[in-house]
Amino acid sequence: MSETETVQGPGIQPLEGEPVARVIVAGATGLTGALAARLLWRHPRLELVAATSRSDAGRRLDELYPRHGVPVTLSELRLDGAPEADAALVALPHGAAAPLVAELRARGVRVVDLSADFRLRDLETYERWYAPHPAAELLETAVYGLTELNRERLRDADLVANPGCYPTAALLALAPLAEAGLCGDVVVDAKSGVSGAGRGAVDFLEIAENFKPYKVDGHRHSPELAQELRELGAAGAVTFVPHLLPIDQGLLASCYVTLAQETGADELRALYEARYAGEPFVELVPAPPGVRDVRDSNVARVHVALDEASGRVLAFCAIDNLWKGASGQALQNLNAMLGLPEGEGLR
Amino acid sequence: MSETETVQGPGIQPLEGEPVARVIVAGATGLTGALAARLLWRHPRLELVAATSRSDAGRRLDELYPRHGVPVTLSELRLDGAPEADAALVALPHGAAAPLVAELRARGVRVVDLSADFRLRDLETYERWYAPHPAAELLETAVYGLTELNRERLRDADLVANPGCYPTAALLALAPLAEAGLCGDVVVDAKSGVSGAGRGAVDFLEIAENFKPYKVDGHRHSPELAQELRELGAAGAVTFVPHLLPIDQGLLASCYVTLAQETGADELRALYEARYAGEPFVELVPAPPGVRDVRDSNVARVHVALDEASGRVLAFCAIDNLWKGASGQALQNLNAMLGLPEGEGLR
Amino acid sequence: MSETETVQGPGIQPLEGEPVARVIVAGATGLTGALAARLLWRHPRLELVAATSRSDAGRRLDELYPRHGVPVTLSELRLDGAPEADAALVALPHGAAAPLVAELRARGVRVVDLSADFRLRDLETYERWYAPHPAAELLETAVYGLTELNRERLRDADLVANPGCYPTAALLALAPLAEAGLCGDVVVDAKSGVSGAGRGAVDFLEIAENFKPYKVDGHRHSPELAQELRELGAAGAVTFVPHLLPIDQGLLASCYVTLAQETGADELRALYEARYAGEPFVELVPAPPGVRDVRDSNVARVHVALDEASGRVLAFCAIDNLWKGASGQALQNLNAMLGLPEGEGLR
Amino acid sequence: MSETETVQGPGIQPLEGEPVARVIVAGATGLTGALAARLLWRHPRLELVAATSRSDAGRRLDELYPRHGVPVTLSELRLDGAPEADAALVALPHGAAAPLVAELRARGVRVVDLSADFRLRDLETYERWYAPHPAAELLETAVYGLTELNRERLRDADLVANPGCYPTAALLALAPLAEAGLCGDVVVDAKSGVSGAGRGAVDFLEIAENFKPYKVDGHRHSPELAQELRELGAAGAVTFVPHLLPIDQGLLASCYVTLAQETGADELRALYEARYAGEPFVELVPAPPGVRDVRDSNVARVHVALDEASGRVLAFCAIDNLWKGASGQALQNLNAMLGLPEGEGLR
Repeated sequence: MSETETVQGPGIQPLEGEPVARVIVAGATGLTGALAARLLWRHPRLELVAATSRSDAGRRLDELYPRHGVPVTLSELRLDGAPEADAALVALPHGAAAPLVAELRARGVRVVDLSADFRLRDLETYERWYAPHPAAELLETAVYGLTELNRERLRDADLVANPGCYPTAALLALAPLAEAGLCGDVVVDAKSGVSGAGRGAVDFLEIAENFKPYKVDGHRHSPELAQELRELGAAGAVTFVPHLLPIDQGLLASCYVTLAQETGADELRALYEARYAGEPFVELVPAPPGVRDVRDSNVARVHVALDEASGRVLAFCAIDNLWKGASGQALQNLNAMLGLPEGEGLR
Repeated sequence: MSETETVQGPGIQPLEGEPVARVIVAGATGLTGALAARLLWRHPRLELVAATSRSDAGRRLDELYPRHGVPVTLSELRLDGAPEADAALVALPHGAAAPLVAELRARGVRVVDLSADFRLRDLETYERWYAPHPAAELLETAVYGLTELNRERLRDADLVANPGCYPTAALLALAPLAEAGLCGDVVVDAKSGVSGAGRGAVDFLEIAENFKPYKVDGHRHSPELAQELRELGAAGAVTFVPHLLPIDQGLLASCYVTLAQETGADELRALYEARYAGEPFVELVPAPPGVRDVRDSNVARVHVALDEASGRVLAFCAIDNLWKGASGQALQNLNAMLGLPEGEGLR
Repeated sequence: MSETETVQGPGIQPLEGEPVARVIVAGATGLTGALAARLLWRHPRLELVAATSRSDAGRRLDELYPRHGVPVTLSELRLDGAPEADAALVALPHGAAAPLVAELRARGVRVVDLSADFRLRDLETYERWYAPHPAAELLETAVYGLTELNRERLRDADLVANPGCYPTAALLALAPLAEAGLCGDVVVDAKSGVSGAGRGAVDFLEIAENFKPYKVDGHRHSPELAQELRELGAAGAVTFVPHLLPIDQGLLASCYVTLAQETGADELRALYEARYAGEPFVELVPAPPGVRDVRDSNVARVHVALDEASGRVLAFCAIDNLWKGASGQALQNLNAMLGLPEGEGLR
Repeated sequence: MSETETVQGPGIQPLEGEPVARVIVAGATGLTGALAARLLWRHPRLELVAATSRSDAGRRLDELYPRHGVPVTLSELRLDGAPEADAALVALPHGAAAPLVAELRARGVRVVDLSADFRLRDLETYERWYAPHPAAELLETAVYGLTELNRERLRDADLVANPGCYPTAALLALAPLAEAGLCGDVVVDAKSGVSGAGRGAVDFLEIAENFKPYKVDGHRHSPELAQELRELGAAGAVTFVPHLLPIDQGLLASCYVTLAQETGADELRALYEARYAGEPFVELVPAPPGVRDVRDSNVARVHVALDEASGRVLAFCAIDNLWKGASGQALQNLNAMLGLPEGEGLR
């Protein structure tokens, strides 16, 4: 897993001077792992030392993902070797991620885990929604990596649980309300493009010209969203329903909130403006966002309005599920952990 | 506007015996008017005596809409002539529809109006959302033509206000709850294909690969939905937000309801089953419907579930916005007015 | 495989009087088999006596294909039983079709085979492109079922090889030229929607927002097209390249022909008009057709023009690959075999 | 049109040291002008000094194109002012471009013109396909800016005619053959996404789920393609037919070539490999390219094969019509004119 083995081809990585850290991407052939590798490959301050894959070791990443243009040969993941990595982005399925994370942590490697394995702080909840936890002892050390909410704690974190795509969008839409104690009952009607399900997961004929809800009896992002809303101070009932859009990338969360106390439209806007002032990746917009506005970017576009008829707050957040909803946020978190500007390598 | 003028081409209309009624379609070059003409053209018991268009008189309808295959020449609308029509489907824009409807009614022609002009029973509400009403005196005679809700009154109606596409889907999702007194606060998150906006309304580049909410500060279907929910007995606050899907046809309403009194999941299902038993165009389905399941059909697919976490009812309804959401329902209403089986010409 | 076993549910098949023939659909769970079952189910003169499926026997067809609305229970295919069928539409994969066709023929059942097994008259060619032929003895009895070309021979045929979707479109575009001895070298650049590949064949993320050629080193429809062009009298070199469109249904063949002798644009049009006059399913159109014009219909739209710059003929044909390119044409052939009007059940 | 007027907002342009040139984008609100502005804005060595628009002066570009993220205020185009520009990318419609180009040239500004005004060297041909030429005197000074073909002449060019999107793809597919004297008769069957037609040009309902040829009686890129093929040494008849794809970006040219002399498959591949060795933006690929492989990049993917059956060469080229087919190539040309590495600002 040395650089000479894994990094080949037309060019070497365009670094500016000595890298701040040497980074592994584990599971680089899934959609999120491949994007993480691309972002690291172009990152001016971080060195991509290995991109691993069980199924495709030996193949070039740019053969699998021509658009990403990463001329790196995929390698088997071997921890008992050289790699001298400082950090890792782990993009394996839940269940498979935790044991690797544990090994990496044991060797002192700092980890951003893109799976669900360390998102739920309550073991019982995890095991009810997923499976027996392979590394439960690490749960309490993990920081929930919604960067905008936990920035302070990321700096010292050794293990960051990268949030799910749906909770990312919903929490960014709701955080200002929740933090201000205004968030009562909530309905989150969320819609995602097909890439949220991963490669090979959806037959073209099943979703082309179609649109439908799914997992209405309980999606795994539901307890994650509830946990974080509680953490922010929201106490109301939360309903979350995901829908599948006939597009590849893009996610919109439409949130309907009963206010815990009466608040005017101007106050609401002021609250959101104050909360997100200076945020590099949250844009407060005056009209409801479309998912295409944020495609292939780490930006979250948020719009808030008051529904006069019902008194409810309408809060919308559009993200690219692969970027801010997965790999982009993972890199934003890694930047924060390493003391780099959060936007480094993400523009 | 006699048949010999307007109906030409390769074939004559395939009627079974004497027609039950002679029917005009006014405004046959819009999406809904053209579909109405197609449905009438193939209707075994009704005769399409004229399809009118201001802009395209003289052209053949099958030139404008090859897929519909209606070999009829469009004519100017002239009321002072022959047409001997018994009924009319009026598919003009709101504001333009009402004066024509008034004239048709004055001549004794029974009308299904697809515009919004006679949907709101309260004149003030109409004029706040639309414009001064050109034929307010007719408002009280109009029957709201959501067939499944007002079947009895349709039989004797002379003027039927065909519902909006969004209210149609939302009301079919919510009616069993509302009628049973169970419907508390409601959020309706609705999504429609582009044909809901009409021809030429949406630039391809604006919506391809995109998805977004629109009119979040108030869509005109909002007061219509509220009016009918009240009529059914629902008293809670109603929030309605439409979104635009990157497909042509199809509409899904996702409804989130706070129950007015506790009700179990089994009870809910039983309630819906009882309510829709025998309905020719409402299908209660065990999993959430996709809009493609009902494309090019007059069927509404409804799914109901209880969200255990929040206690809310989740009710979904998928329709084809051009069929059950417009022209299909118009014909269903016309069948009901004429004492024909509701499904005649709609299979 | 009696009707009482297989046909259940809300309704019985809407036949007008005694059926002309009792028909089996073998392989009714693929896209083409399911559409064939739907067309037969609504056919006023033919009775669908069984829809068979190895994998889904016991399930209802309208559960698998809600839009088709065929309330029939799928059955195992058993030939040693009752079925008393007069004809069969066989929609199995190539290789699997031939043995069943042989058995059906042995029992006197007339067959339209939708697979490739009986399209190539030359055994060696078949075996080079496909595999050893399981029923080569039947090859010479098969009639190539491009209805418009072989109508006369269909009346007495017992085994009809339903053409491939690409050859159907290309041959309809080229037949008038070929029959008139005008067809020299030909390039066929063809484009098909994803349903041409069958259910589950194409990952959404592979083709959404994409477009690409495939099998440029030889598609199996290539020898079929060449065989039939030769049969019609064309002697030039034929190049055929298929491309995959990011839509579900629809196929366009763009054909570029070097004229065997100089011919004017008017002559060309006259030739095509004469050739296709009276054809129920071929529409000669004055502008190039779009695939959507013919969606969900058995119509082939053909446009011919002369490219002044090069002297080449441009001939385009748009079809729905599932209808005229497969099941619609199969039924058109069956109608022809049984002496019924070709359009029966296809409007 | 000074920088202080036009460049505002959150950031200043991220330049590395002194800019090599100060550049105007004229017509920055069209799709190609906006992309040109984005590429210049992020270019490390060129300074975007003004982005002009007649219709939208005073608005911010990132408001019109959120995804491009260019925080620049659009200005009126005034030549009698300060701007001290060294170069300009002109993205106006044909006819409107030429007079501005003439003025800019009169002031010594070097120009890449993205319109068709200077692509055709023969005045008569231009005026037959377009309109009377507003600045015919400049025709002979213009260099046809297909970078890979005219690199040497670009260095000293003051006026570069940026090629059409279709000719770019077709010429890259065909150049190796033409230059080697192997290119006989040619058919170019080309397919483009909707953005090729510009904003607001295509109704969603017209092209969604559709695919069709257009301008089969003569597209304006036809004489341009013929001119350049002749220039490269090809003498055969050229047929060019464009088609419209139901996607936003992406263009594929499928080229069918009769060889001027027999050539083997291996020789062909070797010819292409030699021709494109070292080209930064042409990738020779072993399988036919999809348009999505090159989306949002300046890369042209080329695949060549020999059709054994017909002896024809099959050559495919996929580009992003807005990048290599327009603005990306314009910047590549500008880089070449200024002696910068061609890929600067294009990765």
